[in-house]
Amino acid sequence: MRKVAAIGIGQTVVSEHWNKSLKELAGDAILNALMDAHINKFDSLFIGNMMSASANQQQNIGAYITDWVGARGSESIRVESACSSGSAAFRAAVLAVASNDVDIAVAAAVEKMTDSPSAEITANLATAADADWEESQGVSFVALNALLMQRYLHEYKWDHSNFAGFSINAHKNALNNPNARFHSALSKEQYINSPVICDPITLMDASPIGDGAAAVVLVPYDSLETYGHHKTVSVVGSAAASDTIAVHSRKDPLWLTAAERSAKQVYSQAGITERDIDLFEYHDAFTIMAALALEACGFAARGKAPVLALEGELQLSGHIPVATMGGLKARGHPVGATGMYQIVEVIQQLREEAGKNQVEGAVLGMAQNIGGSGSNIVTHVLTNEN
Amino acid sequence: MRKVAAIGIGQTVVSEHWNKSLKELAGDAILNALMDAHINKFDSLFIGNMMSASANQQQNIGAYITDWVGARGSESIRVESACSSGSAAFRAAVLAVASNDVDIAVAAAVEKMTDSPSAEITANLATAADADWEESQGVSFVALNALLMQRYLHEYKWDHSNFAGFSINAHKNALNNPNARFHSALSKEQYINSPVICDPITLMDASPIGDGAAAVVLVPYDSLETYGHHKTVSVVGSAAASDTIAVHSRKDPLWLTAAERSAKQVYSQAGITERDIDLFEYHDAFTIMAALALEACGFAARGKAPVLALEGELQLSGHIPVATMGGLKARGHPVGATGMYQIVEVIQQLREEAGKNQVEGAVLGMAQNIGGSGSNIVTHVLTNEN
Repeated sequence: MRKVAAIGIGQTVVSEHWNKSLKELAGDAILNALMDAHINKFDSLFIGNMMSASANQQQNIGAYITDWVGARGSESIRVESACSSGSAAFRAAVLAVASNDVDIAVAAAVEKMTDSPSAEITANLATAADADWEESQGVSFVALNALLMQRYLHEYKWDHSNFAGFSINAHKNALNNPNARFHSALSKEQYINSPVICDPITLMDASPIGDGAAAVVLVPYDSLETYGHHKTVSVVGSAAASDTIAVHSRKDPLWLTAAERSAKQVYSQAGITERDIDLFEYHDAFTIMAALALEACGFAARGKAPVLALEGELQLSGHIPVATMGGLKARGHPVGATGMYQIVEVIQQLREEAGKNQVEGAVLGMAQNIGGSGSNIVTHVLTNEN
Repeated sequence: MRKVAAIGIGQTVVSEHWNKSLKELAGDAILNALMDAHINKFDSLFIGNMMSASANQQQNIGAYITDWVGARGSESIRVESACSSGSAAFRAAVLAVASNDVDIAVAAAVEKMTDSPSAEITANLATAADADWEESQGVSFVALNALLMQRYLHEYKWDHSNFAGFSINAHKNALNNPNARFHSALSKEQYINSPVICDPITLMDASPIGDGAAAVVLVPYDSLETYGHHKTVSVVGSAAASDTIAVHSRKDPLWLTAAERSAKQVYSQAGITERDIDLFEYHDAFTIMAALALEACGFAARGKAPVLALEGELQLSGHIPVATMGGLKARGHPVGATGMYQIVEVIQQLREEAGKNQVEGAVLGMAQNIGGSGSNIVTHVLTNEN
């Protein structure tokens, strides 16, 4: 496998971009990534997106966006795996460059959701669940996560308030991220008094949707001299795994087998253990998902993830900094684009461009993007060491 | 690039499968391909599909189908580029195996369209066109192709009846394909008297939609001994290219630049010219697309493709046999799955399993899948020579 390096990143603010079309949003991120890489062309675009068919009446967005960014002619395909579409597109681009067939790939992802009525967005998101056995019963994604959180609180004897640290940390880190959707600190009192959406999940357990796009330019590591780029980050682990699409089909709903499987694969590829990871952009769509991911990836024992939040170990100065630019909870969750934001943020950290949120001396960063209720999980490890 | 071999194929009949769900259809093709390959597991599933979000209220179909076929845990992602989703998924699988990261990949594609009302299907298909400048003006896909055909007839002084040979050949070849949607011969009189859908396109210029799924198992060529497979076909060319999504943005709407570009790439990769191709599974969604593809790929001079049809050169015994199992016109066009059917049919020919439609001595087969009105084109060349 040819070693792959990232030489350019771009992202838009996560917000309600009512004045930008889908292609303009994607174009902004891609053009910024190309400028950052000091190049003006590419061979292939791999674009992650979940819901443009319904939210924007546009499929075939590969060609649509490739033409818009001035790369008419280049290969362009869309990759979709629900909320993990962004990292699935990144992985497809990594494999394309690794195969020797593609020399310059742009991995990008975009989602433009906020034009749609809320009920339509909820219905669109539910298409990531099992249409036959979950969606058709009226179970929304919040409800699925609420069932998981209820079970978790019952099984491991935690109180809901013990989850406050996940959201407080995310909101704190977002304060210094100009691309975050929220710039508001969260207190423990605010967390505890937050209205219940679906018992026990409150508004402050849940990430906000949004419009946004992010992009990364990838080239073979051995071609770096051509680009004269000094802030190079390379991919040392890339893996994806699946689980049942329906939560009720899992023997243990509180264990994300696809997170464990893909994490173990990337640790093995990189020749490391979880103890070597300096920061972890996890998929905190809901606080319960944050907890389950930490456990499945080996950062906490089963049922013990809230301890990390309670003891401050998830903060920038902690043992395993997470959501360093705000995470899904406060940077925002433009669903099909989220995975690419995570990768871009890991690269910001590894290039020491994270500003006040810089994790000092970070060498290995991990990003993990969860599709569905854990049915499709993609994990990457990147490094700034050669 | 690690050489990639196809060791198993599967397909369902193209029909109205009202008694099968999306996952059952896909599962039938995938399980048949795995049985054909004599294996019962895989590392990664790449599934092509265009419209499950709207037609089946199901996204995230990678995990959905992977679990159904008994491969829970394996990587699984969906690839979409409108009508070329099938071959885009095949190409993603080829690159994954070529990269050394994946050892057994299943490339599959599925579309289940016929449950939806016709108007909804037309609207879904229109999302492959430009939402801002085509779809929003009410231009359907038939209308876009009708404009192209009108221009072609005007520019090159052909009569509509000169296109009969494309459809007659497709219907004839479908007679011997048990998986084809239509098993009815077509006469020149029937073609000429066929009702106009959108002037000058008649019913017999247009391919029928349908439900269907097809799959191919891919492994590294150098691992073939492991599988003890004797009917191996390998991929010697794989390329994708794009064009403007809107037809009116092209300088020359009668030239498929993405078809030419991707065809030249695969010829170069395989070290051949178009004269070496023994059969061509082209994208005859409409007869005009068949003509434009033949010209862009070098099989006919500009404006001269109807000569091939008139002189019988497209038949099984002709210079360049096309639509050897019925093509889109008569095998049927389950949009996101069509590209995989084309690949499976090329493999049938190269394994000498095409029955009465066998192209004698075929060594090199080409498949070309067109997304949108030529905006996203994927071309492959396969061979049975080692």
